[in-house]
Amino acid sequence: TRSIDLAVVAGDGIGTEVVEQGLAVLEAAVAGSDVKISTTEFDLGARRWHATGETLTDADLEAIKGHDAILLGAIGDPSVPSGVLERGLLLKLRFSLDHYVNLRPGKLYPGVTSPLANPGDVDFVVVREGTEGPYVGNGGALRVGTPHEIATEVSVNTAFGVERVVRDAFARAQARPRKHLTLVHKHNVLVHAGHLWRRTVEAVNADFPDVTTDYLHVDAATIFLTTNPSRFDVIVTDNLFGDILTDQAAAITGGIGLAASANINPDRTAPSMFEPVHGSAPDIAGQGKADPTATVLSVSLLLDHLGLTEESKRVEAAVAADLVERGDRVRTTAEVGRDLAARVNG
Amino acid sequence: TRSIDLAVVAGDGIGTEVVEQGLAVLEAAVAGSDVKISTTEFDLGARRWHATGETLTDADLEAIKGHDAILLGAIGDPSVPSGVLERGLLLKLRFSLDHYVNLRPGKLYPGVTSPLANPGDVDFVVVREGTEGPYVGNGGALRVGTPHEIATEVSVNTAFGVERVVRDAFARAQARPRKHLTLVHKHNVLVHAGHLWRRTVEAVNADFPDVTTDYLHVDAATIFLTTNPSRFDVIVTDNLFGDILTDQAAAITGGIGLAASANINPDRTAPSMFEPVHGSAPDIAGQGKADPTATVLSVSLLLDHLGLTEESKRVEAAVAADLVERGDRVRTTAEVGRDLAARVNG
Ligand SMILES: CC(C)[C@H](C(=O)O)[C@@H](O)C(=O)O
Ligand SMILES: CC(C)[C@H](C(=O)O)[C@@H](O)C(=O)O
Repeated sequence: TRSIDLAVVAGDGIGTEVVEQGLAVLEAAVAGSDVKISTTEFDLGARRWHATGETLTDADLEAIKGHDAILLGAIGDPSVPSGVLERGLLLKLRFSLDHYVNLRPGKLYPGVTSPLANPGDVDFVVVREGTEGPYVGNGGALRVGTPHEIATEVSVNTAFGVERVVRDAFARAQARPRKHLTLVHKHNVLVHAGHLWRRTVEAVNADFPDVTTDYLHVDAATIFLTTNPSRFDVIVTDNLFGDILTDQAAAITGGIGLAASANINPDRTAPSMFEPVHGSAPDIAGQGKADPTATVLSVSLLLDHLGLTEESKRVEAAVAADLVERGDRVRTTAEVGRDLAARVNG
Repeated sequence: TRSIDLAVVAGDGIGTEVVEQGLAVLEAAVAGSDVKISTTEFDLGARRWHATGETLTDADLEAIKGHDAILLGAIGDPSVPSGVLERGLLLKLRFSLDHYVNLRPGKLYPGVTSPLANPGDVDFVVVREGTEGPYVGNGGALRVGTPHEIATEVSVNTAFGVERVVRDAFARAQARPRKHLTLVHKHNVLVHAGHLWRRTVEAVNADFPDVTTDYLHVDAATIFLTTNPSRFDVIVTDNLFGDILTDQAAAITGGIGLAASANINPDRTAPSMFEPVHGSAPDIAGQGKADPTATVLSVSLLLDHLGLTEESKRVEAAVAADLVERGDRVRTTAEVGRDLAARVNG
């Protein structure tokens, strides 16, 4: 038997609801195999912060590090000042565990309606850098609340950080049929960071000569995501541009209810983290209305990362089959989870 | 007679072609009135840079400042290293002339096909800050070309700069039927800059009590631009987010061939600048294929800025009428210009 120790951070709002279903589908995927899942729940998020003032302590982090992977629901609540949980918990996990590959597939499954009139075949993956860029928290403010306030945000980009994520993106592109990589940045304005990204893509391309590349400014990328998303295969981009593009990608492929993500530490020096792209959606929390599909697809990415390729494929296939028949049917969170688990087993 | 002295910066690629038509329509709009247009052409862009190494000299800038407004075509050419003309010419104009309101309408005209299946009524305007944010050029790089390279980009935001553009956006919202303002930022990650923007919107709202407001993270804004663009009335946002959102806005409202913009100095301490959102499009330059409509709509914004409200409306009406009948007809740049000029006159 192989035992998998999972850290579970259900978090806030609909996080607990979707994670419950994600775990049920995970159990179904390994049922009858020699894989045993054990889970440790971490009480992190708004409730904990209100009770103790803590977001993520060193002890939490150490305990999480002892696990094979993390399943995360959603972080954030209107009762907590903006940024506290995002920076102190979610981003702290991504940065501390060196999740430098934030992987976000953009795939339009058969049966799913896109808001685009002619979406075409949409099947790309965004490799979003996860540990640098404008997300480093390297900003500050002076004379806050006065007419002389000045606030800065510093985007930090290193050759080390850019090369490793670019290399990962090339490897992913090479493994796909189209073998195409698009760098998205804004090097005509953000010349220092942008040129580092550009030179790095050119240099690493030498090690992946069969991968073709092109470049788009981030503004142009939003146009193509609207007019011709089929043109994309693998996109590599910085932390902030990746945040923006992957929400847009989710919108054109059936919405945030279906968008999965993996925060990967490819060197496996710490556990990787799997989470739906959506947030805690406080407006619908506790009502059984949230779609757990994005979490279930994140579970598929988790299984793949742990080498359980066949199980990963079965979970994705279950989702794909469910989507074909879904139509306008309204089901509760638990019903969708139950149906997906049944398909995974069946 | 009122004389209007226009600085014309046709620039690179299709810039010269579309500006020629923009000027023709401008002439048509004032024909028979007591307004006289005189133009000074400025040789700026790739040709000048190759010939002299200059992008925009102090003398150029002084000469331009003597004009009532600027009509700009497009800047940028693949033969010039990325960033040189953008930073040294286009952004230098915007920054030196204090164009702190970068105004970009997002309007789906009748007859125009949107790539969205159900676009709804799209009629919003983006007020993009034009003189701060990540565009300030406040970055640098160390150990360039080595494995220890580090590149930074600093977003600079001041109470002064944010307040003036927010105030302008509120005033525009107040003048529109829906009186709604959406702030777009990313204050859960870019906490210093984001909170400055948020607090400023809250404070200025007191002076515009009849304007309703809401807030979206930039990633969520790309979703709504895809799924429900009708929800937007006035958007106010920072320089980089505005760059991204306005290209996406162009995509959903018929493409970059129709997207107009105004770089406004509301204090009128220097001339404002009017330009299509599109770039120099070197791939189609010199072939008479470029659509001059975005430039013509920018001319409409120019006329409005100069107080020629009736002329401005006639130009926009000419474009609107042309778009209704346009269909899939293929016309040259000059033919579109001629047809629009005829409608303005007619
Ligand atoms: C909640 C927020 C900090 C986060 C991000 O910006 O990365 C989210 O938008 C995401 O994309 O996972
Ligand atoms: C060419 C470039 C510098 C410019 C910008 O980023 O502002 C363009 O994309 C625009 O939107 O006008």
